[in-house]
Amino acid sequence: MKIVIVGGVAGGASAAARARRLSEDAEIIVVERGREASFANCGLPYYIGGKITDRDKLLVASPELLRTRLKLDLRLRSFVKSIDRDRRTVLIRDLETGREYEETYDKLILAPGAAPVRPPVPGIDLPGVFTLRNLQDTDRIRAEAITGMKDAVVVGAGFIGLELVENFLRLGIRTTLVELQNQILPPLDPEMTTPLAETLRSQGVDLILGDSAEAFEQTEGRLLVRLKSGRTVTADLVSVGIGVRPESGLAVAADLETGPRGGVRVNVHQQTSDPDIYAVGDVVEVEDFVLKQPTQIPLAGPANRQGRIAADHIFGRDAAYRGTQGTAIVGLLGKTAAATGASEKTLTRSGLNFRAVYIHPVNHAGYYPGAEQMTLKLLFDPQDGRIFGAQAVGGAGVDKRIDVLAVAIQAGLTVFDLEEMELCYAPQYGSAKDPVNMAGFVAAGFIRGDHPQIDVTQLPLTDSEDAPLLLDVRTAREFAAGHIPHAVNIPVDELREQLHELPRDREVLAYCRVGQRGYLATRILMQSGFQVRNVSGGYLTWRLWHPETEEL
Amino acid sequence: MKIVIVGGVAGGASAAARARRLSEDAEIIVVERGREASFANCGLPYYIGGKITDRDKLLVASPELLRTRLKLDLRLRSFVKSIDRDRRTVLIRDLETGREYEETYDKLILAPGAAPVRPPVPGIDLPGVFTLRNLQDTDRIRAEAITGMKDAVVVGAGFIGLELVENFLRLGIRTTLVELQNQILPPLDPEMTTPLAETLRSQGVDLILGDSAEAFEQTEGRLLVRLKSGRTVTADLVSVGIGVRPESGLAVAADLETGPRGGVRVNVHQQTSDPDIYAVGDVVEVEDFVLKQPTQIPLAGPANRQGRIAADHIFGRDAAYRGTQGTAIVGLLGKTAAATGASEKTLTRSGLNFRAVYIHPVNHAGYYPGAEQMTLKLLFDPQDGRIFGAQAVGGAGVDKRIDVLAVAIQAGLTVFDLEEMELCYAPQYGSAKDPVNMAGFVAAGFIRGDHPQIDVTQLPLTDSEDAPLLLDVRTAREFAAGHIPHAVNIPVDELREQLHELPRDREVLAYCRVGQRGYLATRILMQSGFQVRNVSGGYLTWRLWHPETEEL
Repeated sequence: MKIVIVGGVAGGASAAARARRLSEDAEIIVVERGREASFANCGLPYYIGGKITDRDKLLVASPELLRTRLKLDLRLRSFVKSIDRDRRTVLIRDLETGREYEETYDKLILAPGAAPVRPPVPGIDLPGVFTLRNLQDTDRIRAEAITGMKDAVVVGAGFIGLELVENFLRLGIRTTLVELQNQILPPLDPEMTTPLAETLRSQGVDLILGDSAEAFEQTEGRLLVRLKSGRTVTADLVSVGIGVRPESGLAVAADLETGPRGGVRVNVHQQTSDPDIYAVGDVVEVEDFVLKQPTQIPLAGPANRQGRIAADHIFGRDAAYRGTQGTAIVGLLGKTAAATGASEKTLTRSGLNFRAVYIHPVNHAGYYPGAEQMTLKLLFDPQDGRIFGAQAVGGAGVDKRIDVLAVAIQAGLTVFDLEEMELCYAPQYGSAKDPVNMAGFVAAGFIRGDHPQIDVTQLPLTDSEDAPLLLDVRTAREFAAGHIPHAVNIPVDELREQLHELPRDREVLAYCRVGQRGYLATRILMQSGFQVRNVSGGYLTWRLWHPETEEL
Repeated sequence: MKIVIVGGVAGGASAAARARRLSEDAEIIVVERGREASFANCGLPYYIGGKITDRDKLLVASPELLRTRLKLDLRLRSFVKSIDRDRRTVLIRDLETGREYEETYDKLILAPGAAPVRPPVPGIDLPGVFTLRNLQDTDRIRAEAITGMKDAVVVGAGFIGLELVENFLRLGIRTTLVELQNQILPPLDPEMTTPLAETLRSQGVDLILGDSAEAFEQTEGRLLVRLKSGRTVTADLVSVGIGVRPESGLAVAADLETGPRGGVRVNVHQQTSDPDIYAVGDVVEVEDFVLKQPTQIPLAGPANRQGRIAADHIFGRDAAYRGTQGTAIVGLLGKTAAATGASEKTLTRSGLNFRAVYIHPVNHAGYYPGAEQMTLKLLFDPQDGRIFGAQAVGGAGVDKRIDVLAVAIQAGLTVFDLEEMELCYAPQYGSAKDPVNMAGFVAAGFIRGDHPQIDVTQLPLTDSEDAPLLLDVRTAREFAAGHIPHAVNIPVDELREQLHELPRDREVLAYCRVGQRGYLATRILMQSGFQVRNVSGGYLTWRLWHPETEEL
């Protein structure tokens, strides 16, 4: 068996390692354009910022190790120019010598990854305007960043953009972050990104949303960034990270099938439309595990998994890829945001019937010092309770809850199963009712009809007597410190005595700070014959949508 | 509906709160022996040690809140002496006034909890010999501990025992820990407790295993503890925590059915053998979720859940308890140990066919600073791969992996599903191949026959040529620093060249430090016609069983 693998990072490296473990005899040729194979893509921003100090640590496996231990025929600084499917050969070009030569294959695995999108705007190729993909980009950005650089502009507030911002701040560099959308972290729903946006601003980042770079110009040894809005920003360095495109040119030229977003089409075994050619990693179109639709989701975990599956299938195993959930996480200046499964945005687009609930729990028992708050949003099927997706933002423990919910989605669990989950509890680690249980209670209560809820975005912000009455059940003091417009205040502990003050011909929409007292108020009112709903996630959720008003 | 609840902590408090949410009209009487209801049991050791400084924080809900917000008829310092099932009354005694009176009920919920076992040894009732159950015990122990106490003896190295030790150390108190079994933390398998035992000893704790307290005596204002071994220890305070017994006396006197370990028998709705009487929390016998056998597992999460279910059922809902997995966690001096599902001990006892694998991953990407190692043990069905249980010990991230595996067990997932899990990966949080994925790979490889493994306890520690050959595939330097007796050393990177040195008529047992190089060596040897197995978890697992030899 002779296997040629195009690309030696993540998916390609995993495929090679797995193939070797399955076969000592196989000839395994890995063709990698870069000077290194198998490097830690996700660590690059942290090397730039000096959090990771040892560059060698970014090499998951050194070329020597790959050659010795895994007996790989590793060809660095080489790339595959073309594929001749009939003859089962590839044309390889050695970038050092310029030599071109053919190599035969029994099976070909394409793992070229995805390339950063370089918008076709004037000045995009100026020195000082970077994209970040590999170690060479990293070296160049770091070289600039540690030599007296004062100002940086990061274009694109995705995962890598935010990580770059954190690392520029770590180096004391003033940073402007420009994002085309009206939110940072576009894979998340907008309100869930509010705490991170506030963190960025509080740390001095100039965050410009709903704007984009239209041109880059050189000016007095620095760079001038012209934004669509007309604003200009001057900086020493610009990093552009507005997304990636699958590097499917080679596959397209070989007439392999691709999807509408450019990804190579593969079956569950990672085979392309040519059964002797596999594709893995960021270059492939994947199936969205929840929505069952083709999509592109560039992630390291799935890439590794797909590489393994391709190798398994080449050696006669029935391994199959089950789709991608899109589980992702980012750390930013002490906060964490993470998501798994479908977002409200993708669910809305898909037309599926769904429902969202919000909770704002702390990560461990509140009575133990150091508890940190998070906001958890759970998306589910309002009929059968199946979990569609989850997002969380906050302090410690966000990763744990999203991992737990990622498994719940993988297993097809429902919000009723969340109620039952038996998770670790000691006061430093969790609560007897873990945030995941709480999310289950709130969502299951909605489905059972015990806990009717209204989304904060649906509130009628009016004092018209024709509209529902907005009832704030927090204390008078909390109410005075800030409340949703047009709300009236009756603290929950006084509610039973003041029922006569509430209208029986208007719906009552109750809310508190996080939703818990509002839930009790809803129960009291429901059982007293009122028409009532609780505002899901309460005032804190309202503040996620209205961060500009008052203190959060 | 008139509900009387016996016990106002955890399960009782949850039942009361849930009942109120379900019914505004219900009369809900909570009879609690203590001065407070609804306190945070699991926080008590941390208040003793001063980690939690505000005693009020231990009150999950104050009596006033329970009375006002939940409209509970809370009767503190009261206990139920007897039940008259025919008349549906209880006899209540007010501990303050001595008054006894009857109260009728429509439904009765028993939530009296479990009491610490007080071994019937001489001196058990001496002043200074404590058990820890409630706030009053806590206050007494804390009063002693913060007034110049020098030495403490903790009898029983279960969860609470270890937490007490940590908190005594926090106060600068020299501590001796005595445990009857030959390991600490008896719910875990012995080898998994080795790192914690080493931590205790390295922090100066005098850890005495396989011994027990036979008598307590007063001596010069202090206490003398006589151990079965003949050793004596002198201390200012002794805390005895050798287990708990369900407080089922009231239920037994009322002729309710109980199990062999004293727990009250209940159905899935938490109904006792009298359908008008429910029981929840530590007093009940639960079904082991994995083994499907009745057992006693005192845990706060399940108690809360059961309280909720009892209230639901009383109000006509079909809520059902699904059994207890025994998910538990303890923090000890910067380390964490946690478990979920069945242990090797309970599996062995049950006669189920099972298999264990070990891995020793770090909690997040090794290239990002601060990665901490853990040991993860996975127990599974070697036929179909169903997960029976998991245990982990180490630094950060232990709780997350056990929670993920707890959900996997709940959902009936297999080790093959662990391979597929898509968990959060950024370098501060995890790895592209998370420890849980790795455990899945190792276990699934075993089942598929790709990765034959031998348990470290099965190694033939002999140099007889009739026995398998033990092959250490680490570097010569690692080998020289310590190895399993009778092993020979061929580093994995030289293995292919030295195959001729290995016997073809003897099985080869390969090992490395954690199992990964041993796995590659196993693959190389298998494919070269050798009979070979990898030692699961490698040298680090061997060291868990043999901590006394050389440095870990």
